[in-house]
Amino acid sequence: MRFNSEQAMRWFARARVARLATSGLGGPPLVVPVTFAVTRARLDAVDHSGGASIVTAVDHKPKRTRTGLRRLRDILANPAVSLLADHYDDDWAQLWWARADGLARIVLAGEREHTQAVGALAARYPQYQILPPSGPAIIVSHLRWSGWAAAAPDEDP
Amino acid sequence: MRFNSEQAMRWFARARVARLATSGLGGPPLVVPVTFAVTRARLDAVDHSGGASIVTAVDHKPKRTRTGLRRLRDILANPAVSLLADHYDDDWAQLWWARADGLARIVLAGEREHTQAVGALAARYPQYQILPPSGPAIIVSHLRWSGWAAAAPDEDP
Repeated sequence: MRFNSEQAMRWFARARVARLATSGLGGPPLVVPVTFAVTRARLDAVDHSGGASIVTAVDHKPKRTRTGLRRLRDILANPAVSLLADHYDDDWAQLWWARADGLARIVLAGEREHTQAVGALAARYPQYQILPPSGPAIIVSHLRWSGWAAAAPDEDP
Repeated sequence: MRFNSEQAMRWFARARVARLATSGLGGPPLVVPVTFAVTRARLDAVDHSGGASIVTAVDHKPKRTRTGLRRLRDILANPAVSLLADHYDDDWAQLWWARADGLARIVLAGEREHTQAVGALAARYPQYQILPPSGPAIIVSHLRWSGWAAAAPDEDP
């Protein structure tokens, strides 16, 4: 079954990891795993997609430096991004995915929105309460939600 | 720890699901979940990345028709793709990801390579032995492998 926008947002928001795809203008796409939070600024608004944003951040672990730079460069050249949360199971009746396509912008440490983004991330991931991500945050808005589940779930996650 | 190419390929190849990112030239990126198989034509070659390909296919389920078309259109316009396998755990010492960046081409049902791709997929996913994917196959080659694990694993997966 296809998810409607609200269902896709709900399922996506509960996932623990998402994959962020970026591409510079004309460049190759890049997909990386990201921790994230959905900020449902206007969850109860008529337009369920309109007010929500997805935030993620680049931490300063050496492992991520190069990839982090590439994703930031891509976004500066082309703000269009695609984010996917999905569940795989060898029982294909359990499959589902939810995607958010939107426009990304970068906010740097010290900006008010960076603090908000890190706060939203720390609320989901206790690790960030100890060591908050200090790199740039990525805020994705103007979201278009889509998704699918193999079977109609008994209830929302 | 960073994976070397061979490690990244090994970890990727054992995953059950990957995420395929495509982007038309200048268009927005798109990320979708895919079943896949790694065909290790020259696994024992000196260049561990050179001979391997990743194959996936579009099945004919209605759910995938629109997305399937979009990813195929993207590849026709821009063959560069990025594929990610990853593992998330709330214990971040368990995190790992492996990525393959390469060039995709489309082969249609009836072509020899389509038959080979479907065979490789059916060997991994019993569901395809009952109902093989009948849509176009995507073959990604010229792979560059990368990856990372939070902790050095005791042994390869």
